[in-house]
Amino acid sequence: MQQTFASIITIGDELLIGQVIDTNSAFIAQQLNSIGISIKHRLAVGDAWDDIWQALDEESKHASIILITGGLGPTSDDITKPLLCEYFGGKLVIDEGALQNVKAIFKRLDRPMIERNLKQAEVPDVCTVIPNQRGTAPGMWFEKNGVIYISMPGVPHEMKGMIENYVLVHLQKDRQLPSIIHKTLLTAGVGESFLADLIQTWEEALPQHIKLAYLPNYGMVRLRLSATGAEKGTLEEEVSAEFDKLQLLVKDYLVTDEDEPMEKVVAKLLLARNETMATAESCTGGYIAHLITQMAGSSAYYNGSVVSYSYDAKEDLLGVSHNLLVEKGAVSEEVVKQMVTGALARLKTTYAVAVSGIMGPGGDTEGKPVGTVWVAVGNHENVMTQRFHFRFDRRRNIELTATNALNLLRKFILSVA
Amino acid sequence: MQQTFASIITIGDELLIGQVIDTNSAFIAQQLNSIGISIKHRLAVGDAWDDIWQALDEESKHASIILITGGLGPTSDDITKPLLCEYFGGKLVIDEGALQNVKAIFKRLDRPMIERNLKQAEVPDVCTVIPNQRGTAPGMWFEKNGVIYISMPGVPHEMKGMIENYVLVHLQKDRQLPSIIHKTLLTAGVGESFLADLIQTWEEALPQHIKLAYLPNYGMVRLRLSATGAEKGTLEEEVSAEFDKLQLLVKDYLVTDEDEPMEKVVAKLLLARNETMATAESCTGGYIAHLITQMAGSSAYYNGSVVSYSYDAKEDLLGVSHNLLVEKGAVSEEVVKQMVTGALARLKTTYAVAVSGIMGPGGDTEGKPVGTVWVAVGNHENVMTQRFHFRFDRRRNIELTATNALNLLRKFILSVA
Repeated sequence: MQQTFASIITIGDELLIGQVIDTNSAFIAQQLNSIGISIKHRLAVGDAWDDIWQALDEESKHASIILITGGLGPTSDDITKPLLCEYFGGKLVIDEGALQNVKAIFKRLDRPMIERNLKQAEVPDVCTVIPNQRGTAPGMWFEKNGVIYISMPGVPHEMKGMIENYVLVHLQKDRQLPSIIHKTLLTAGVGESFLADLIQTWEEALPQHIKLAYLPNYGMVRLRLSATGAEKGTLEEEVSAEFDKLQLLVKDYLVTDEDEPMEKVVAKLLLARNETMATAESCTGGYIAHLITQMAGSSAYYNGSVVSYSYDAKEDLLGVSHNLLVEKGAVSEEVVKQMVTGALARLKTTYAVAVSGIMGPGGDTEGKPVGTVWVAVGNHENVMTQRFHFRFDRRRNIELTATNALNLLRKFILSVA
Repeated sequence: MQQTFASIITIGDELLIGQVIDTNSAFIAQQLNSIGISIKHRLAVGDAWDDIWQALDEESKHASIILITGGLGPTSDDITKPLLCEYFGGKLVIDEGALQNVKAIFKRLDRPMIERNLKQAEVPDVCTVIPNQRGTAPGMWFEKNGVIYISMPGVPHEMKGMIENYVLVHLQKDRQLPSIIHKTLLTAGVGESFLADLIQTWEEALPQHIKLAYLPNYGMVRLRLSATGAEKGTLEEEVSAEFDKLQLLVKDYLVTDEDEPMEKVVAKLLLARNETMATAESCTGGYIAHLITQMAGSSAYYNGSVVSYSYDAKEDLLGVSHNLLVEKGAVSEEVVKQMVTGALARLKTTYAVAVSGIMGPGGDTEGKPVGTVWVAVGNHENVMTQRFHFRFDRRRNIELTATNALNLLRKFILSVA
C-alpha cells in the first residue's frame, strides 16, 4: 500500500524572526500519523503574498495533503484568506454558519462587535467551511488537481479543535490509509555511541521496513522503532517482536518502554504503589512541581512543593538549620538532606525530593562552580544523595536537574521493597 | 541595499512525527536577524537521503545561506555528513582538530572511547570545519555557486555555541549587511480587532518599509514594527518615531514597550522599587515560580513559593483555616486571600500572589465549572482579588492563569504609591 504524504505550511513573520516557537506542527504531525498519514515537509513562510503562493505550488508537488496554519485573523497582516481565494479562483462570500458563530461568541463574551469581526465570516465560495467551535475564524477545505488544502487558524487551541473534530474524520473518508506504528523506549545513564554498539547486531538484522532512530538528550537516549504497512495487525506484531528484543538488549539502562517523560514514569510508579511525594526546590524554582502538576490527576500522589529561594524560606518552611546553611552553604549535601526531611514532615508524603544548586550564569559562590547541584531523595527511613555538575545554560541546567532528580527518585522508589 | 536571505533546514524524522518540538530554528532566526540576515524559509525534512538532497537543491534557489541542523550523530540514522560529502563532491578525512576535541571530551568525562566516537572527527575534505566546543560532532561550512551551506548538530546547546562563536562572525566577514529592526510592545485587556480599529489611521499612514504585525495571545496582543534598511541610524529613528506614536495610541492597554514576558515586567518593577514577592500556588502547581526563577538574578526580588496541592499543605504551610476550606472550598475568594496573607507572613515579602482553580480536564467539584480560577494579590495593607474563567486545555489554562495573575500583581504594584 502506498504511503500518503502531507506537508504542513505555517504562515507568519513571527516564525521567521524567531519570536514564536511553532508547537502547532508537532501536534498536527502526531494526529496525522495516528491515522496513517506521513509528513513530508514542515515549512514556515512569512506573511508575504509571493512566498505563500510559491509554497503552495511547491508543496503540492511533494504531498497530496497540504495543511496550512496562520494568517486568518481580522487584521491587515493576515493575508491567507484573500490569497487562497485568488489561488483557487473563488470570490469571498459570507458563510451563514460562520456568521452565526461569530455573533454567538461576541454575545457570550458580551463585547461589542465591529465590522472587522463580521468579515471573519467571509470565505471563498470554492471552499468547504470547517467549523471553528473555539474562535471566530472559520477553517477552509479546498481541493485542486487531486490535492487537498486545509487552512486553519494559527491559534493552537482553535487549530486543535478543527483537527480533532473535523479534519481527521474527513481525511479518512473514502480513503484507504496504511498503518503507522511508532514504539519508543527511554534509557538513562549510557551514551548513544555505546548503545549503538550494544545493539548493532540486532539493528543490522532489522527488517527493511522497520526504522530505528536514536534521540539523545544529555545522558538519556530514546530509541524509536517506526514502521508503515497495510495490515495493522501484522505490522503491530512485527514491530512488537523487535521492540521486545531491543528492550532485552538495553535492559540495564531501561527507564520506560513508553514514549513518556520521567515525571510520568514516577507518577505511574506512585499510583501503582498508592504512595505520595513532595518536592523541596531551590535551584529548580518550581519546575519539578510544574512538570508533575501539568499532568491531570497529579493531586492523587502529589501534595505540593516548597520553593525555597531564600535562606529564610529554607529555615522557616523546611526547618533547615540556620547554622548548617551558614557552615555548609545552601548548595550542600547536608542541606538537601534536611530539605527532604522537612518536606516529608510538612507535606506528609511517602517520598520527597530536594534540590539545591547554582544554575548560572552567575552565582558561583561558596567555592562551588556554576552547574553544581545537590539532589536528595528519600522516605521516612532513608535518604539518598547525588552530586551533579551541569555545564549548560540556565534553562537547560534547570531542565537537567529536574529530570535527573526525578530519575534518582525513581531509582529510590524501586529500591524500596 | 539588497536583503540577504537565509533558509533553515532541520533534519530528523522526530520533527515530522511530532515527537520533538523544534526550538533551534527560533534561536537561529533571532541571531541571524540581529546581524541583518532575513529568513526566507524554515523547512523540516526527515532522515531520508532524497528528501535532504532535494531540500538543499530547492532552498539554494530561495536563499544564499542555508543553515542545516541535525543528523550528525554517531549512529546509523545520522546521514547528513555522508550526504553532504557526496553533495559537494568530497571525501571523508579525519580532521586533526576535531579528533583532539573528541579525545579531550572523553578524557574529561572519563569514559572509554570506541571506534564510533573517533568517526565523529571525520569531515568532507571540501568543507571548512566549525569547531564544536560543547560536543563531539564538528560543524561544517561549504560554499557552492555563491551559496553558503552551514551544517550543525541538532543538540541545541552545541548548535548555539557554533552560532555564537563562529557562524555570526564569519557571515559578517567581507559582507555588507543591512540593519533589521524589530520593536514590540505588549497590550492587555483588549482584542486585536478593537486594537486594529483604534490604530487604523496611523497604520494606513505607515511608511511602506515599516511593517506592522499583530500577535494575539488570548486577551494579550503584541504589536510589532519591523523594518529593514541600509542605514542603521536613520532606520532606528524612523521606527522609533512610529513606535512612539503607536504607544500613545494604545496607552490605555500598554503593559510594556519591550518584547518581554509578563514575569519580566513584574521583575523590573520590583527591582526598581527594591521590593520583593512570593507566590502561593495551587492550580498552577509551581509554574509561576518557574517563570520567575528561570530568569537569572530572580533571587534579588523573589523569596519562594508554597505549592499547596493538598488541603493539608494549604493549612500547614500557609495557615489557611480548615473551616474556610471546608465551607467555601479551595477554589474561593476567601481561600486565595488567606493564601496571600500566609505567603506574605511565611516568605517575608512586600507582595504575594495566590491562585486556586480547576485546570481540567476533570475536577469540576464544589459546583464550580472547570476553568474557574480565583487570583489574589496583595501586600501587608491590602488584598485585591479577581475571578477568571478559562475554557482551554489544562496546559493552556495553567499558562493563562500564571500570566493573568502576574498581570494583576503588576496592576496592584502600580496602584501602590
